[in-house]
Amino acid sequence: MKVAIVMGSDSDFNVVEKSIKILKEFGVEVHARVISAHRTPFTAIEFAKNACENGFEVIIGAAGKAAHLPGVLAGVSILPVIGLPIKSSTMDGLDSLLSIVQMPKGVPVATVAINGAENAALLAVQILSVKYPQLKKKIKEYKEKMAKEVEEKDEKIQLKIKN
Amino acid sequence: MKVAIVMGSDSDFNVVEKSIKILKEFGVEVHARVISAHRTPFTAIEFAKNACENGFEVIIGAAGKAAHLPGVLAGVSILPVIGLPIKSSTMDGLDSLLSIVQMPKGVPVATVAINGAENAALLAVQILSVKYPQLKKKIKEYKEKMAKEVEEKDEKIQLKIKN
Amino acid sequence: MKVAIVMGSDSDFNVVEKSIKILKEFGVEVHARVISAHRTPFTAIEFAKNACENGFEVIIGAAGKAAHLPGVLAGVSILPVIGLPIKSSTMDGLDSLLSIVQMPKGVPVATVAINGAENAALLAVQILSVKYPQLKKKIKEYKEKMAKEVEEKDEKIQLKIKN
Amino acid sequence: MKVAIVMGSDSDFNVVEKSIKILKEFGVEVHARVISAHRTPFTAIEFAKNACENGFEVIIGAAGKAAHLPGVLAGVSILPVIGLPIKSSTMDGLDSLLSIVQMPKGVPVATVAINGAENAALLAVQILSVKYPQLKKKIKEYKEKMAKEVEEKDEKIQLKIKN
Amino acid sequence: MKVAIVMGSDSDFNVVEKSIKILKEFGVEVHARVISAHRTPFTAIEFAKNACENGFEVIIGAAGKAAHLPGVLAGVSILPVIGLPIKSSTMDGLDSLLSIVQMPKGVPVATVAINGAENAALLAVQILSVKYPQLKKKIKEYKEKMAKEVEEKDEKIQLKIKN
Amino acid sequence: MKVAIVMGSDSDFNVVEKSIKILKEFGVEVHARVISAHRTPFTAIEFAKNACENGFEVIIGAAGKAAHLPGVLAGVSILPVIGLPIKSSTMDGLDSLLSIVQMPKGVPVATVAINGAENAALLAVQILSVKYPQLKKKIKEYKEKMAKEVEEKDEKIQLKIKN
Amino acid sequence: MKVAIVMGSDSDFNVVEKSIKILKEFGVEVHARVISAHRTPFTAIEFAKNACENGFEVIIGAAGKAAHLPGVLAGVSILPVIGLPIKSSTMDGLDSLLSIVQMPKGVPVATVAINGAENAALLAVQILSVKYPQLKKKIKEYKEKMAKEVEEKDEKIQLKIKN
Amino acid sequence: MKVAIVMGSDSDFNVVEKSIKILKEFGVEVHARVISAHRTPFTAIEFAKNACENGFEVIIGAAGKAAHLPGVLAGVSILPVIGLPIKSSTMDGLDSLLSIVQMPKGVPVATVAINGAENAALLAVQILSVKYPQLKKKIKEYKEKMAKEVEEKDEKIQLKIKN
Repeated sequence: MKVAIVMGSDSDFNVVEKSIKILKEFGVEVHARVISAHRTPFTAIEFAKNACENGFEVIIGAAGKAAHLPGVLAGVSILPVIGLPIKSSTMDGLDSLLSIVQMPKGVPVATVAINGAENAALLAVQILSVKYPQLKKKIKEYKEKMAKEVEEKDEKIQLKIKN
Repeated sequence: MKVAIVMGSDSDFNVVEKSIKILKEFGVEVHARVISAHRTPFTAIEFAKNACENGFEVIIGAAGKAAHLPGVLAGVSILPVIGLPIKSSTMDGLDSLLSIVQMPKGVPVATVAINGAENAALLAVQILSVKYPQLKKKIKEYKEKMAKEVEEKDEKIQLKIKN
Repeated sequence: MKVAIVMGSDSDFNVVEKSIKILKEFGVEVHARVISAHRTPFTAIEFAKNACENGFEVIIGAAGKAAHLPGVLAGVSILPVIGLPIKSSTMDGLDSLLSIVQMPKGVPVATVAINGAENAALLAVQILSVKYPQLKKKIKEYKEKMAKEVEEKDEKIQLKIKN
Repeated sequence: MKVAIVMGSDSDFNVVEKSIKILKEFGVEVHARVISAHRTPFTAIEFAKNACENGFEVIIGAAGKAAHLPGVLAGVSILPVIGLPIKSSTMDGLDSLLSIVQMPKGVPVATVAINGAENAALLAVQILSVKYPQLKKKIKEYKEKMAKEVEEKDEKIQLKIKN
Repeated sequence: MKVAIVMGSDSDFNVVEKSIKILKEFGVEVHARVISAHRTPFTAIEFAKNACENGFEVIIGAAGKAAHLPGVLAGVSILPVIGLPIKSSTMDGLDSLLSIVQMPKGVPVATVAINGAENAALLAVQILSVKYPQLKKKIKEYKEKMAKEVEEKDEKIQLKIKN
Repeated sequence: MKVAIVMGSDSDFNVVEKSIKILKEFGVEVHARVISAHRTPFTAIEFAKNACENGFEVIIGAAGKAAHLPGVLAGVSILPVIGLPIKSSTMDGLDSLLSIVQMPKGVPVATVAINGAENAALLAVQILSVKYPQLKKKIKEYKEKMAKEVEEKDEKIQLKIKN
Repeated sequence: MKVAIVMGSDSDFNVVEKSIKILKEFGVEVHARVISAHRTPFTAIEFAKNACENGFEVIIGAAGKAAHLPGVLAGVSILPVIGLPIKSSTMDGLDSLLSIVQMPKGVPVATVAINGAENAALLAVQILSVKYPQLKKKIKEYKEKMAKEVEEKDEKIQLKIKN
Repeated sequence: MKVAIVMGSDSDFNVVEKSIKILKEFGVEVHARVISAHRTPFTAIEFAKNACENGFEVIIGAAGKAAHLPGVLAGVSILPVIGLPIKSSTMDGLDSLLSIVQMPKGVPVATVAINGAENAALLAVQILSVKYPQLKKKIKEYKEKMAKEVEEKDEKIQLKIKN
């Protein structure tokens, strides 16, 4: 189980590291790369062309502004590509989101929320779980843990608000 | 290989049928449903709870406006859920897109372009191909066919525009 | 007179507590819950299904981002559901607002302003006042008090700006 | 059970009549008015001031563009006011929606979707049902009928899409 | 020469005081008021009805969010009404702007930029100058002073950037 | 009483003629021009420089897309300039509106609604009425006529909707 | 003088042909291509890599939705790249515009208006004119012709609107 | 090789100086000016009219809000004009962007990203390189340096994330 997480700039790392943390928690091997669709386009193409042969099963592409990276990777690779829109200093992330999600017919990018790094990782895990049944169990446990946390907060709030 | 495609309203069918066509072309068994997160919430929950046990491996949820269906399915099921935002009569699809893509931490929805029915299906195929190697070959062929079509159009345009 | 206020995350509490304060000022019994449409969907459904039988007369649902909670509650319960969009770290609350207000035909959510916690509570009180005449008087007094406060500020400004 | 539905312009009638139809189906007495917050402001104020005394229990205000009508009515009346944003020829209804929903602290307007006339009426019915238990039963039946319609469509689609 | 500047909330004062300063610089008598279209609607109507008789020649209405104040004043008064949209904590002022500028046929509001307090005042002065020729000369001087300031900055920058 | 109405393109005429019609109804002399801030900038500057001397008292500038015309006229002339944003084939008029209304400090443009030609004219009349008392009476009559029309529609709707 | 105009899809041709027409009018040799950044990424890279050597001096890239083509070409080529955002069936061209214009530091794309095909061509001509003085004269004539056309329309409108 | 960089206000300088720095790095003579389309329109027109004769080969216009400066310069000059939208205190730069990029047919402005000062300069260099071959080599080196920086960051990240 091997996932590549490619970010367009190292300034995206503080968001992307949340993806890495979750992937590792699920026991997924993760390779992190800084590759720019605009500044290192040949590396981007090369990476995408060989990603499948190199054993990657899912690619996460994180980028901001005119965020072309996930789309470029998806144009070349046959692997499922997850797009993680990064909020930059203007336009509140709307530019990143639209640049990633509005892909033309034939080349999908599986887009998650703006700065939704955890969800990018969880989506990768869910995709892998189609093949690796052991992940299904872990996802179930993750969901149960999340539910439990909400329930504990629920109890606290109920106690706090007395009439 | 079995995919469920759930639409929030039968008025979404003219978009959704493009997904169905592509899934069938790739030899994927597809079950289409009309289930509303708001009008038939119990069916939605029930469907999602059993989707994995019923042999589905990916779910596509298509919905418009305050498009909650994909998120609700993703909240219950452990399967990867693809969200297909449908453009409705106001707001040009922005409401559907944001309602689907901006999922909170812990529950991702793999969102494609507004009305991007073909891409929803292709993403499902890519996800399945992680497990089923035969689909990898078909995706490669699909990409090659797309490329060829563009190349033919390219030749025509080049001929058309003479200086 | 009993109102349920359900928030999708305990991080919404700093907004929601303004609703609670106002409801208590009006003598309305208020139960606060943390229930997530995505992380604890079964609790959400269960809560909504029994809300009427449990003596609630109005439900306030507060949520951010892809804010499905009020819509999910409204899909199940027959009670009037007030939607309170919470501003999150991206998109300035527009995603929350559209996810809550753009409900499809058949399942309304009574939406108030982004982060408009006081108004969510006041709307609940107005809805209750249809049945409980004593609240009508209190609303009148509340409006008169607001007016008086504005008038006092008006006098201060008039004094301050001398020609 | 008496509801007033006030529209800012008679051009809103083709949307508003869907509200009237639903209110009548639920056996609610409905009075329809054309009152403009800008062209007949005194009538608007007068209407709102006396609405409660005249036996109205809920007011629906429908308006487009800089849609001030629901807010103006809510400023004067103590009744719950439902705001129905009408889509006009520019801005796709976003101007109407924001003008209605973003009410300042102290004066809520219960806003429904752009052009969501049916939901404005259903919300009025839900509000009335807090007081009139017979409406609760009707709402339940309405929800069941909606669910049934979706289920029938679901069956048709399932039959149509054979693998 | 008398201008009324009406703000919907005293929290708008830190913006509005820039209008007052400019009006006084031009020798225009200015009366500042806090009147809310929603919290003190009768005062708003009363003020607008008598504004002309009370010697006001232009009204400036400043408001945020669902900013109805300028429109309500313009509905009642025959005086030119200038709308000053105030940026609030969400939606970056777009809600205020659209609520003020998108007025329906028959009732114009002369809208200036979001938080454009100086321009609201200058527009009032320009309107008054149609009647009072002495203001024309002052506006000319104001424009010349502005131009001179820009020219001085221009010279500084030219000196600063040497090749 | 003389108003200039300048449009950026003759394609704006079908909107602008509604302004002309209203100005004539109020007995205001109106000169219509096609002057482009971008294609005939010298004419624009020249026109604005002499507008006051040529007896104009108000200028209406109508333009679409990157709508610079009203701002350019306002930069040169000391007269009040009304900006009329024209909706073009993309962006639903938002580009025109923001280009006109968001003027920097020192140079206001009195902006009306997108395609709000009637209101541009009425605003011009209101500005002129500061100087010409006879217009005040006409505006009052215009408002009364509008009110009467609304009242007649109100009566019709009331009759139509019988319970 | 040789310009390449690359469109992402042959469906963009009805917009792009206006660029071609203008380039030919200015005597510029134009080569039109259909190359997709997503469907034929290798052709895109190859084309951009050799564009300069192949004698092209400016590249125009036209694309819609998640419009990556101009950015991808600009990442590889050292030539100036003009981006022409094409309006597609959703989002009114905003997605195309933001995807093209919001390029990260280091890789500019010279963006023109949505569907602004003529301007893309004129910008290419202006860029070429830096090197080829004969184009300067032609641009001057083009501007004079435009001005004349506006002036003729201006005269017609002036005659048409008599007081 | 001489470029003019004109800013609408000296408050834009902290953005614009990044353009100046890059232009100097490329050995381009740069003249910086503060000229306002609205406060010093005659200077703007005069500057643009003589820019070509004064030896400038490219103009960069930087402006915020209703950003008319680049368009006004482009209307007068035959030189290529680059538009640099500056983010101001409201609307997150969207107003500046649309005011600059949505130019009407006949008068293009080569628009770069909001606050994209480096890219404005690089685009100017690319335009000049059409004429001056020595710049082509420098651009190539700049691109290679950028690529190298990304590659170094890539290596660091790869080392940092060990599985």
